[in-house]
Amino acid sequence: MRLLRVDHIAIVVPDIEEGLGFWQTALGLSVDHREELPEQETIVAMLPVGATELELVQPTADTSGMARFLARRGPGLHHICFKVENIETTLAELKARGIRLIHDEPIAGAGGRKVIFVHPKSACGVLVELVE
Amino acid sequence: MRLLRVDHIAIVVPDIEEGLGFWQTALGLSVDHREELPEQETIVAMLPVGATELELVQPTADTSGMARFLARRGPGLHHICFKVENIETTLAELKARGIRLIHDEPIAGAGGRKVIFVHPKSACGVLVELVE
Repeated sequence: MRLLRVDHIAIVVPDIEEGLGFWQTALGLSVDHREELPEQETIVAMLPVGATELELVQPTADTSGMARFLARRGPGLHHICFKVENIETTLAELKARGIRLIHDEPIAGAGGRKVIFVHPKSACGVLVELVE
Repeated sequence: MRLLRVDHIAIVVPDIEEGLGFWQTALGLSVDHREELPEQETIVAMLPVGATELELVQPTADTSGMARFLARRGPGLHHICFKVENIETTLAELKARGIRLIHDEPIAGAGGRKVIFVHPKSACGVLVELVE
């Protein structure tokens, strides 16, 4: 397996517009695009920084995993995502090494790309996403 | 102000050797170097991924801020660091915008580089480091 780069870093916030105040005004970043992810009950705004993007994530339903995370831990860093060459071979390698995953198969992430999530229990408490 | 790239992403762990198991064996990353930061009472291991590094951080004293974070929240994502062109002008711009900082002046970070930290209260709950 080879991680190509940090694809994005996700930050959960109660309100994207309010959250953008800091990243845009104070740090000078710009929103590349916004996207609604109905399956994950979130809306996201992507802000490029070099070859990486910051992903501000706002839950759209109180019942979503993201909303529960926000209620429990407050706003802040949520997960990091690495770009890999091939998601299917990556998945097979992780399974062969006994790494605990959130889903058994790739799911659709932002931009419709195939993603998998490694469970924080297998990754030093970090929710790790891998995207092709 | 212009953020050039994500310099590093810090992950706090109780034990670096144990923590490396996942990042090295499962994800195929390698340690570029290790460093002890006596002022911050930590040891760190840096693992490059593209233009960014993962920084595994282990507290070396129970009294350090990092040790208290670990005791309170468990292992996981701790802060993100962005590279900027000039730390002094960045500091002046942040102060002029009323952004809350951890220290009033730049301090020495890993590799002896000048760094500043933005307080999570000003940054959506995220501890943000800026390095020249």
